[in-house]
Amino acid sequence: MKKFIILFFLGLSLNTWAQQLERVEPMSWWVGMKNPKLQLLVHGNNIATLEVQLSYPGVKLVQVHKVENPNYLFIDLEIANDAIAGKFPILFTKGGKKQAQYIYELKNRTQSISRVQGVSNKDLIYLLMPDRFSNGDPKNDVIKGMKETQLNRDSMYYRHGGDIQGVINKLDYLKDLGVTAIWMTPEIENDMPLASYHGYAATDHYKIDPRYGTLELYKTYVDKAHEKGLKVIKDIVHNHMGTGHWFFNDMPMKDWVNQWPAYTQTSYRDEPVMDPHASKADQKKMLDGWFVPSMSDFNQRNPYVQNYLTQNHIWWVEYAGIDGLRLDTYPYNDPDYMRDWAVKIKAEFPTLSIFGETLVNSVAAQAAFTGGNTVSRGFDTELPGITDAVLKNAIYEALNGKSGWTDGIFRLYSTLAQDFLYQNADRNVIFMDNHDMSRFYSMINEDIYKYKSGMALLLTLRGIPQIYYGTEILMKNYSNPDGLVRSDFPGGWAKAKSDKFTAAGRSSAENEAWNFIRTLANYRKNSPALQSGKMMQYVPENGIYTYFRYLPQGGKTVMIIINTEDQAKSLETSRFEERMGQANSAINVLTNEKINSLKTISVPAKTTLVLELN
Amino acid sequence: MKKFIILFFLGLSLNTWAQQLERVEPMSWWVGMKNPKLQLLVHGNNIATLEVQLSYPGVKLVQVHKVENPNYLFIDLEIANDAIAGKFPILFTKGGKKQAQYIYELKNRTQSISRVQGVSNKDLIYLLMPDRFSNGDPKNDVIKGMKETQLNRDSMYYRHGGDIQGVINKLDYLKDLGVTAIWMTPEIENDMPLASYHGYAATDHYKIDPRYGTLELYKTYVDKAHEKGLKVIKDIVHNHMGTGHWFFNDMPMKDWVNQWPAYTQTSYRDEPVMDPHASKADQKKMLDGWFVPSMSDFNQRNPYVQNYLTQNHIWWVEYAGIDGLRLDTYPYNDPDYMRDWAVKIKAEFPTLSIFGETLVNSVAAQAAFTGGNTVSRGFDTELPGITDAVLKNAIYEALNGKSGWTDGIFRLYSTLAQDFLYQNADRNVIFMDNHDMSRFYSMINEDIYKYKSGMALLLTLRGIPQIYYGTEILMKNYSNPDGLVRSDFPGGWAKAKSDKFTAAGRSSAENEAWNFIRTLANYRKNSPALQSGKMMQYVPENGIYTYFRYLPQGGKTVMIIINTEDQAKSLETSRFEERMGQANSAINVLTNEKINSLKTISVPAKTTLVLELN
Repeated sequence: MKKFIILFFLGLSLNTWAQQLERVEPMSWWVGMKNPKLQLLVHGNNIATLEVQLSYPGVKLVQVHKVENPNYLFIDLEIANDAIAGKFPILFTKGGKKQAQYIYELKNRTQSISRVQGVSNKDLIYLLMPDRFSNGDPKNDVIKGMKETQLNRDSMYYRHGGDIQGVINKLDYLKDLGVTAIWMTPEIENDMPLASYHGYAATDHYKIDPRYGTLELYKTYVDKAHEKGLKVIKDIVHNHMGTGHWFFNDMPMKDWVNQWPAYTQTSYRDEPVMDPHASKADQKKMLDGWFVPSMSDFNQRNPYVQNYLTQNHIWWVEYAGIDGLRLDTYPYNDPDYMRDWAVKIKAEFPTLSIFGETLVNSVAAQAAFTGGNTVSRGFDTELPGITDAVLKNAIYEALNGKSGWTDGIFRLYSTLAQDFLYQNADRNVIFMDNHDMSRFYSMINEDIYKYKSGMALLLTLRGIPQIYYGTEILMKNYSNPDGLVRSDFPGGWAKAKSDKFTAAGRSSAENEAWNFIRTLANYRKNSPALQSGKMMQYVPENGIYTYFRYLPQGGKTVMIIINTEDQAKSLETSRFEERMGQANSAINVLTNEKINSLKTISVPAKTTLVLELN
Repeated sequence: MKKFIILFFLGLSLNTWAQQLERVEPMSWWVGMKNPKLQLLVHGNNIATLEVQLSYPGVKLVQVHKVENPNYLFIDLEIANDAIAGKFPILFTKGGKKQAQYIYELKNRTQSISRVQGVSNKDLIYLLMPDRFSNGDPKNDVIKGMKETQLNRDSMYYRHGGDIQGVINKLDYLKDLGVTAIWMTPEIENDMPLASYHGYAATDHYKIDPRYGTLELYKTYVDKAHEKGLKVIKDIVHNHMGTGHWFFNDMPMKDWVNQWPAYTQTSYRDEPVMDPHASKADQKKMLDGWFVPSMSDFNQRNPYVQNYLTQNHIWWVEYAGIDGLRLDTYPYNDPDYMRDWAVKIKAEFPTLSIFGETLVNSVAAQAAFTGGNTVSRGFDTELPGITDAVLKNAIYEALNGKSGWTDGIFRLYSTLAQDFLYQNADRNVIFMDNHDMSRFYSMINEDIYKYKSGMALLLTLRGIPQIYYGTEILMKNYSNPDGLVRSDFPGGWAKAKSDKFTAAGRSSAENEAWNFIRTLANYRKNSPALQSGKMMQYVPENGIYTYFRYLPQGGKTVMIIINTEDQAKSLETSRFEERMGQANSAINVLTNEKINSLKTISVPAKTTLVLELN
């Protein structure tokens, strides 16, 4: 921060109560934004006793707000359409005398087609925890002065040393696997005394955690990813911050966070948010209750909080040129704020992708959080996408359950049939696991047949597929009780026993899994039908579920056939005439074998076939 | 029918091929209908070879349609707004000579406030099967010339002899119990050789089955019910008819019913109807496949079929003044036809209630069948209500399941939270069982505590409660394999071992159940909050689920507290302040006990409290 802040101590010897200007945030901005308004947060000891002055063509000082805490000022600026990039001082004066100043910079927006590309169903997202993926810079493993002082790779709750340089080092690995977008758990500073590695307890909204790298390195990471054709998703948290946040212990006003007479935890229940029968008390507990004691809950009805968070997110997108935002704990946020936020973000970045984390239990609840007013009776959340936990549960039921009227493969079929509740289910992020849940391979009892079926579903169903780091090498474990689902990627640290980033370091089973994903992910890159085609599914019959991905205007159709049962089946195909048309042969995408007759298709036990029709 | 049909055999000796006029349907109509159009179906041997003539002020013969089968004519009439009730001949001529005539009658519509009252959430519906409830007229048990000739009360698949007179005899019984509306399974003729008792295989759309009574007796039944303050729901079947139907074996045209190369049964899966990914083949199988081999599936895309069915239903409502229609097998019908039908019916009878049978598996699917466009993306079914099978399943889960994040009492809570999917869930018919499923008392393992909790939920939740005959006397049994859920009501037949229509004939447990329903149903009659108040529910805590029914404009609030666990609980009430307000005492509606402090409320094990707050 130092290079942005110039402190003046003129007359310090005369003024024992001299102000110290500690922060101005956002610390810089841009000309040419859609929204001409900008609200600066200024923090400094007794800063509110000073006057504010500035003079720059096209920049209007609209209002200076004093709030409960004299250590804050909020400065409303209006930046004209025709303002030109440049720097200007913001003066803090008393009795006409300058006490401090801040050189504010307005930059030109960067124009480049590789910036803010958006993430769509054409992509494959790879989710990783930067502390646990690859340690590219051992020098930043422990940072003096930060509250968590230990590196302890034997414990899941301490830092392990992974960082952004580590991810940069593995971009080629990811590209080779077929990944096209990277989602890291949050990289901003989490200077918390315990479990600071997970990133969801921010302590500074404008700083990359020094254990991960610097602001400049983050930008380099984005640029390098873009160079290789990989997109970048940033994981942001509207709902809460760490209690070690710099402004948590010197809050602008009491209602900067949601206050309770005694510590009150959220109910974690999404129902009160949408339930027409909900009580205000239950809504308040869900939305304003704290996630955990170490994460304080922002009061998103406070307009200063609204501006602060929204501008911060705009700042990151414009600064780094990132392609998508993943919104943590979406249902816990104030709905009105989130709607306004989405409108503002989309206005600045029409190509940016946004999806919210919604770990809820029904398609209806998921759909109620998405935009387009399909089910929300007049309230449009303006949120394009969500994480499709309900589809995940349905895929598990298909793989592990026994077929019945609503069970087994029928659960998957009927879940997808409810897509009419969404404006566009293609924007759902679909996945089998993430850092908060048991790993896919464990949940299917380490059965390689189920693994392949699950991965084939993930890479051929509608939506934006996301895999969790290590799934490609059969990493396993359960979310409870030990957190081992956040284990280090073998090979990401120097002196690893084995380097599973390389084929030589992987076992044959691991390579089988890895190659399966690589084959299908890379096929998918060149299959418009799988990427963004329409889907047609058929009522499962005889234990077999069949669906198609296709382009209404022609092009290659892909037929997916899932047999979850223990015996091989023969599938008679006449009922699929609407999609198979005149096709009389197919290529098995996974084996490259040609199938010369499609009248009946042999489907081995516990197997998913992916066939390109010809 | 004879009295409506006058056959003329003029010149018979000269014409060896003389036509016989067998039917004109609707056999009469009314002046003053909203829709001036009327299409008569005329059936008679070679009737299509004749010319049609009529002359009556205000009645215009618009067109006569000949169809594939010369035994039919369809005559389009237009009846002017100012047409006056009266009779006129429809002449069938050849070479100017009259071969036959039918005296058509246009009546005045009957005006009376007790007709077509509508059934709402103020009501309690009692569903009964007329063959199994009470035998009021033993003379009609077996009717000569009909295909089922046996009366066999030892078998669930034969006729037992119950009839409309039997129901008339028990109107006071039903009224005393607290019932306000009666829904009988279909009463129209089912002249089928097997299982004709259930009524869903019609063989004549304009005739009461003679084993139940006559057209006049049906009208008498409706009038008598109305006199006693009871409403009447008619159960109608759009989807299919019995293969013994008079027009099934002499069809107007081949596509009068849905034809298949070989017998094809419906898939019984509702998903293809709403699934945006559905195939045409799956939609066709669901909608056009036959329900069972003995019930042929109407082709509802055929405009003659559309007119025939719609006019038939209008005829019944206008003829008898019934209050509501229950639409059998709703999801199996052609959606466009059903929408048009609903628009036409509601235009003629704005106060009529309509609800469709939807035995589906999600709130989303149920909501997709209801009107108001809340989830159906542009297709408004125009259907006001459905049978809420999903709520039924949730209540069972609450009573029988173990409390968990999505299980036990939470299933019920979260199901109701999805009411945002409906335009108005108050129109849902809620129930615990019916003639197609295992009886409530068996499904809760004959546990009287669960029975009371379930009945208390049914009578206090939003929607229109419906009980199935015999539930009030703890009738039991499972739907499979023996059909005993359709057993006779004990006391409905002469020489019964015990008459459970009387307190003296019931066991003490049966009287306990009977009185429980009677108490709550009669309380409900005078509780605007329970009848049509809003609902507010709270996230279950500590094994207890609490909700309120209340009137926004004031009036008595009712608080319902459900403890499904095996131990007594003490409920601290401060979190309910929004609904309890200043209330400091309450009456236990079921015991009439007064509760003098509401700060904490004792809730016995496995008990539902219904408290009127004061």
